[in-house]
Order: sequence, then C-alpha cells, then structure tokens
Amino acid sequence: MSAIRHALSTKREDDFASWYQEVISAADMAEESGVRGCMVIKPWGYGIWERMQRLLDDQIKATGHQNCYFPIFIPLANFEREAEHVEGFAKEMAVVTHHRLIQDARGRLVPDPEAKLTEPLVVRPTSETIIGDAMSRWVQSWRDLPLLLNQWANVVRWEMRTRMFLRTSEFLWQEGHTAHENRDEARAHTLQMLEVYRAFAETSLALPVIAGEKPENERFPGAEETWSIEAMMQDGKALQAGTSHYLGTSFAEASNIRFQDREGGQALAHTTSWGVSTRLIGGVIMTHGDDDGLRVPPAIAPFQVVILPMLRNNDEDAALLEYCDTLRAGLAAQSALGEPIRVLLDKRPGKAAAKRWDWVRKGAPIIIEVGGRDMENGVVSLLRRDALWNAQTGKPAFEAPSSDDAASSVPAMLEEMQAGMLHIARTRREASIDRSIDSFEALAQFFAEDRAFPGWVEVNWSRPTGAALDAVEERLKELKLTFRNVPIDAAPATGACIFTGEPAVERILVARAY
Amino acid sequence: MSAIRHALSTKREDDFASWYQEVISAADMAEESGVRGCMVIKPWGYGIWERMQRLLDDQIKATGHQNCYFPIFIPLANFEREAEHVEGFAKEMAVVTHHRLIQDARGRLVPDPEAKLTEPLVVRPTSETIIGDAMSRWVQSWRDLPLLLNQWANVVRWEMRTRMFLRTSEFLWQEGHTAHENRDEARAHTLQMLEVYRAFAETSLALPVIAGEKPENERFPGAEETWSIEAMMQDGKALQAGTSHYLGTSFAEASNIRFQDREGGQALAHTTSWGVSTRLIGGVIMTHGDDDGLRVPPAIAPFQVVILPMLRNNDEDAALLEYCDTLRAGLAAQSALGEPIRVLLDKRPGKAAAKRWDWVRKGAPIIIEVGGRDMENGVVSLLRRDALWNAQTGKPAFEAPSSDDAASSVPAMLEEMQAGMLHIARTRREASIDRSIDSFEALAQFFAEDRAFPGWVEVNWSRPTGAALDAVEERLKELKLTFRNVPIDAAPATGACIFTGEPAVERILVARAY
Repeated sequence: MSAIRHALSTKREDDFASWYQEVISAADMAEESGVRGCMVIKPWGYGIWERMQRLLDDQIKATGHQNCYFPIFIPLANFEREAEHVEGFAKEMAVVTHHRLIQDARGRLVPDPEAKLTEPLVVRPTSETIIGDAMSRWVQSWRDLPLLLNQWANVVRWEMRTRMFLRTSEFLWQEGHTAHENRDEARAHTLQMLEVYRAFAETSLALPVIAGEKPENERFPGAEETWSIEAMMQDGKALQAGTSHYLGTSFAEASNIRFQDREGGQALAHTTSWGVSTRLIGGVIMTHGDDDGLRVPPAIAPFQVVILPMLRNNDEDAALLEYCDTLRAGLAAQSALGEPIRVLLDKRPGKAAAKRWDWVRKGAPIIIEVGGRDMENGVVSLLRRDALWNAQTGKPAFEAPSSDDAASSVPAMLEEMQAGMLHIARTRREASIDRSIDSFEALAQFFAEDRAFPGWVEVNWSRPTGAALDAVEERLKELKLTFRNVPIDAAPATGACIFTGEPAVERILVARAY
Repeated sequence: MSAIRHALSTKREDDFASWYQEVISAADMAEESGVRGCMVIKPWGYGIWERMQRLLDDQIKATGHQNCYFPIFIPLANFEREAEHVEGFAKEMAVVTHHRLIQDARGRLVPDPEAKLTEPLVVRPTSETIIGDAMSRWVQSWRDLPLLLNQWANVVRWEMRTRMFLRTSEFLWQEGHTAHENRDEARAHTLQMLEVYRAFAETSLALPVIAGEKPENERFPGAEETWSIEAMMQDGKALQAGTSHYLGTSFAEASNIRFQDREGGQALAHTTSWGVSTRLIGGVIMTHGDDDGLRVPPAIAPFQVVILPMLRNNDEDAALLEYCDTLRAGLAAQSALGEPIRVLLDKRPGKAAAKRWDWVRKGAPIIIEVGGRDMENGVVSLLRRDALWNAQTGKPAFEAPSSDDAASSVPAMLEEMQAGMLHIARTRREASIDRSIDSFEALAQFFAEDRAFPGWVEVNWSRPTGAALDAVEERLKELKLTFRNVPIDAAPATGACIFTGEPAVERILVARAY
C-alpha cells in the first residue's frame, strides 16, 4: 500500500477551516473581491449555482409559483411597521442616503450634499415588507388566494465576520412569498416548501438533511413558526441549509394585506416565506469535498464528463481531437439523471496531467483522458472522481474501457455516483448523531471531549418558552452549542427534558453550527 | 364591415405614451412599486424576461463566455480611476453611506451615525471597474486571454424621469466583459457580440434592428467605440436596444490589467463590454403591441398556447377538462422554434370570455377555447393573436378545426407567426426610413411637419468630431433629434454632409428616440 499524494496541501482532519478555503481556491470557485464582505463568484462556482437554480426553479414552478421581481431598495418606513422584523434586521443593513456624487475641492468623489434622500433607502436584506406592499394591492378577494410568488435576487446583510459562500454581506438566493386564506393552508404550504427543499437537497445536491421546526428563539424575526433543513458537514457541525416560515398575520397586518373572505367579511391574509441561498454551495463543499478538492454531485455539475485529449502539438492532434469529439458527441446524445449529459472537450493548451488535476480539484465527476496510443487501441483512460485512488498503488485509479464501453457506461456511472454520494453522506451523518444522551452532563461531556468533529446529539426536551428557554440557550451558548431543530421524523419523546427536568414533549437536535 | 371594439381604451394613434402604459397594465406585466423610480415586474413581464434570458444566455455561452457574479457595491475609488467614466456616471448613482439603522428618540429609524462607512460604496451602475479589478488578478499572461465573462445582474442609475421598462432607476440586464491581447481581437469581439444581439433581437424578439456605430458624442463614457442595435417603435421613435463597446486600453490602465505578451514584454489588455436589459421588453411592447394589448412573439412567450375550457360548474366539467388535458399533452409533446411547445391549460374559475380577453391583452400567441359542444363534435375554437379580428364581422376570427388538426397545425402556426411578426415590423420600419433627404432644411421639414410618427432619416455626413460635432448635435437637439448610428449595412456615402457641407464619408441615422 503506497502513500497517496493528495492534490490539496491541507487535509480536512488537520484544519477543516483552512481546508475549506483551499478547496474554494483550488477549485477556482470564488475569491475575495476587495469590497468588504463581498465575494466574486467565479465561473465554476457560478456554474454550480446556475445548475441549482435551474433544478430548484423547476420545482418551485411545479408547485404553482410564479417568478417576479421586486425593487432592491426598501423605504425605511416599511421596516418600522413590523417591530420584531426591524429588531431582527436593523442591525445589519446597507443604507442608501444619497443619489449623486460630486468632486470635492481636492478632486475626490464625495456624496453630493444637495442630493441627500429625504427618506433613506435600505438595500433589501429580505423582501417580506416590499412584497407585502404589492400583495396588499393584488389581494382583494379570497378568489385572489393563494398568491404564490418567488423571486431570484441578491440581498445584503452587513456581516461582521464573513466566510465565502457561508456568510457574506451580499449573497444570491431565492425567496418565496405566499399569501393564503387561512392558517391551515398557510402552514401546509410552509411545510410543502420545506419538503421541496428537503427533496431538492437530497436528490440534486446529494445533501442529506433533517427537516424540522426551529425553537422559538431561533425563529425568523416576525415569524410564528420557522422550519429548517439542517445538514451535517464533515467536521460534524450543522449548516442550516434552508428555511421556511409561517408568518401568521403579522406581516399582513403590517402591509395591510386584507381580503373579502368567503362570507363577505374582511380578513387578514396568512403569509409564508422561504429561501435558500448560495450558502448551499458551501454545504456541498463541506459535505462532498475531500483531500483532493471538491466533488460535485453529477446532478449539479456544470460538466459531468471532461474529456482531455493528450495533445502533442504535432500532426496527430487533429485526428485525436476528432476522435475525442466523436466521443463527446456520443456522450452528449445520451441522458443521465433525466437530462442530456453535459460534456466538455477541454482543448485548452497545457499538459494533460496538469489539466487532469485541475478537474480533479474542481470535482468534475468523470475525467476521460485520450492519448494517441489510446486512440489506436480504441480505448480511453477513465477516472471517477468518487473513486480517485487505487489504494494498493497509491496512483489514480484509471480504468481503460473501450471507447464504446466508456460511452455506454457513463449514464449509469453518473447515476450511481449521485446515489452513492448521498448514501455516504447519510451514513456518515447517522453515525455521528448520538440519540442516547439523557442528561445535560452527558451532553456537555459529548461536546467537551477533546475529540475532533463530535457530531450532533438528539435529546428529549420539554419545549420551554420565554425566559426558561433563554436560560437553556445560555447554558448551550457556554458550550458553543445551538439548537438546530425538532426533527419531523424524530421518535416520540419519552422521559425527562435534559434541560428542565420536566416531562419531555419532543426531541431536539443540538450541535455546533456554521 | 362592422366596427371592431378593441380591448384597450387607448389607441396607439391617439396617444402612444398612454397606450404604452395601458398595455403594461392590461397585460399585467409590471407596475409602479412606490419606491422611487423602481418597478415591480409581475409574472407575465418577468416570464417574458426569463425567456429572453434563456435564449440569449445560450448564445452568450455558445460564443465562449462564462457567467460569474461580481459585487453589487463598488468602492468610490474605482470610479476615480477612469476620468471619462466617472464623468458619465457620477451624476446618477445610489450611494451607501451607513451599514446600520437605529431608532431615534422618537422611535423612528435613522442611519446610525456610529455606523458610517469610511469609504462610501456605490450601487453598481455598470461593472467595468469592479470586473476590471478581478481581471487584473486573473490575467497574467497572453495565455490567459481572451478572458470572456458575462454576468446577469441588477444595476441602478438614478433617473429623474422614469418610464416602465424603458428607463427605471433599477433594471435587470446582462453585462459582458472581455479582455483581449490586442486591438484587432477586441474590436472583432465587440462586433461579434453586436451581431449576437442583432440575431437575437430579430430571431427571438422579432425585433428588426439596425446595427451600427454610434458617433463620438454618444459613446459609452470611457469607450473608444460604441456600437448599437436600434429598433424603430410604432410611433417612429428609435429605441437603443443593445450596445457593444470597444474600450481600448483605458479601463485596463485604470484597473491595471497587464499581461506578459508573446514576446515576453508587458502589455495592457484591450477590453470590451456589452449589454442588453429589461428595456428590451419595452421594445417588444412598442413594436408588436396593438390596440388589443400586447402580442408576444412565440419564441419568448411564456405560454405559446393557452387552452380555455368553458367550464359550467356541472358534471360535464370533468370530461371537458380531460379532453382539454389530452389536447394540452398532445401539444406539449410537439416542438416549435426548436423547443417543446409551452401550453397552459387555464383552469382558473371565471367566464371563458373574460379569460379569453385577459389572454388577448397579455398577447398569448394562440388561444384555444373548448366548450361542451366542441368536445362532442371533436372540434375546438382557435384564435390567433396575430389575426384577431374578422374585418367583415368585427368579431374575433375564430377558426374551428378538429382537435387533431389544431394539434398538428400549431407548430407551423407558431413559426409562421414568429416570422410574420418580424416581417411586418421590418416592412413598417423600411417604409418609415427616408434615405433621400439631402439637406438640413429637408431634414428639419421631415420632422417639423405636423404628421404623427414621422420615422427616421438616413443622411450623408462627414463624421465631424469635437466642437464641430457638438455644434451639429446642438442643431439636432433643437429639433429634439439625436444621431442613432452609422449602419454597418448602409450604402456608401456620395455627396456632401448635410450638416457640415464637407464631403460625406458615411451615412448616419437621425431620429427622435426613447
């Protein structure tokens, strides 16, 4: 068994945070922009986001929503209407105060004092209040309900400590906003969209998630219920991968979304909102990345197969390129995971080995190298990103199928890889959730131990509220822990709450989190 | 011949500006948001934009570009580097000066004086300078060139007078940014993307455009050459529908985009930028709309066929819906214009006639109504939006093909409609360009006449520059006219410039414009 020389300089087990940064850089996904807290999303990172958008957008439309676009600027007054909402967001918003620059005496640009806005505008941190304004115009009667809207947009939340994809001042997301006749329908819709997220995360991102309700203190500012999907990263920390909120009538009241109900009376609409963001890309990295870089699940890989001709800058190159292009066309004519296979014939100049490692670090699912001799023999060299190394030799685990066999086996290979990545991530997660802990001391022990990547615990709790919940939260905070959610699929609680000692009513997940 | 009762209250010929607003409202495309200069793009308007995005994005990728995403905020200092650029944009930018709000003594939200930014940030009006920063990091050697980037984004230009889709403070667009080794390649790329726009406008939007170069005084701030596609609206005014700029090395100098050239020396990159925006939607309305509302070219129609079952809230409805759904599935299984046909079975409650006029105003290309008797007879009632009225009867020109015939004829019908809309618009445009005018007096006469919708003139000119050009522009401005562009396809100039009397070197378009 030979030592493998991995493509990254940092290993996950040595320094997960540095490893994460190295993957982003080595896979050429994003970089710091020089603008405070904002990143540049580079083509490979953005290509993954485009794939996510396309797949999720289809699901959002299939569940009856229509896309639209609302202004990026929100008048201050909108935030004053919903007290909890402003409390939650006012601390971190970008504020536009002027609409013109002029040059000062030294020739430097400064905001023009003559062009000060009467009312400052906020760059949207989320759009409940501005979409609420539109809903109040569009909803007159129960016949106008449900109103099912979605928008893909950039939003800004002024973050003090940023980390690429996970927490940036500007990020990209979709935000769904719906209005309903009554509480039951709105709650059902909140849960339907949570399920859309769960299925999308697992099917498309190979990201196993646990869907559940957030405790009161973790709710979206102004919401009655907040539900989330939570994913476990390879360091055992939790990542909130998406949220769905039942907002009750508080936003409808703030925005005056009233309608004539079936009995002819006036009623307030019940609203929901739900979103996922470019943060999911961070989740994919920390779930599927390895010590050789990123591994992209085939369903969201901008290219699922990359063909690398081993060009020699001689007369044979033309024939080799033609051979590779035939292979490319044969693959592109097939489908996997319900879509035509996305194949790149990478003709860029450069050594094939260097290009191979580029694509390994980027995580392209299948790399096919073709040299002159391969062409003569009618074979190719095929490398699966999910089975990169031959443990015996310590070398890349190339297979050498015939060109025809390679072409015909790729669809199944991609589907197997997609399923395998989910299976591996789910198995790892399940092995890292301790559901046997029955006291706060044991919980503290679980996380206090000096072992790396402890995982999560799921414990009994009595659903305390208000000050009692604050006290529990404070104890968790001392251990750098947070509540994640109360899993929908958890077993019934039996016994005492490990925090309050009172009879438990449900089970809740506790973890360190991003 | 009976009088037709059109679906809109305003006719184009009576008040084109009011008609435009009425179409937007009647087709439910967009509305004022209440936020200064910003609009809400509603589902039908946004659906058209999504279609445009999808089709143009394919072309942008097919020409080798990669999508990425850059920060919405640009530090002031970036604008100070390129003098002409700041001169052109500094007048109309939204400036972020604070990153937090607090409540004042009266409980009102105000920018927190403690959270004032050291350097204000500008909300991007365009991204040359921030993308230039990234290019300076990414371009080291001639091997890194060409660098071909594109971004879909929102931008903000503080406009004093706004009009929906045509001129709004915030709008959506794509902006391409590329860097090249030398002038020739960059210029060729500028023209290649201009041609992509021309083909996209004509093929997808059925919008005939004239591609040409803008005169010096109409150039993008900082550009060496600005090229545009110009479309004629039904009122004879010009709409600049897209621009492509050759930026020379001035932005490369400002952003320090230098590379080692093939000879081992250091060289400045030559850059280009090019964009089209949601303004195109305005162009589609003013080119294809009629006195019954919008007409959407089939290639960009969110739904190309709308099926309206004439429901009666009785037992027969289920069978009727099933019959309609079979028709829907049969249509959706076919392709037109290279894509599966987009069909909506509109099951919403409401009278079929009311729904029909909704879809007429929205401009769905084909409307198919099916009643109980139609079902019994195996026929449908089919209405083409491009041939809405029977001039003899003054009634909608329904055809009554068998259901099978309807299904099989729709693909050709959509393709014919797409081609027909372009043909009609082009014929109208060509009839409205006067290329015979040979003096400034005749030009003044052409536009001074009290006839509505005069159109454009194409005249000889000597390509004056500097102060001489300013003087010509001033004379045009008095007539509310502007230069549009020097058409690539124009005949050679022969004779004297109608402005300067000097020998003409080319032909230029003059028009009123949006």
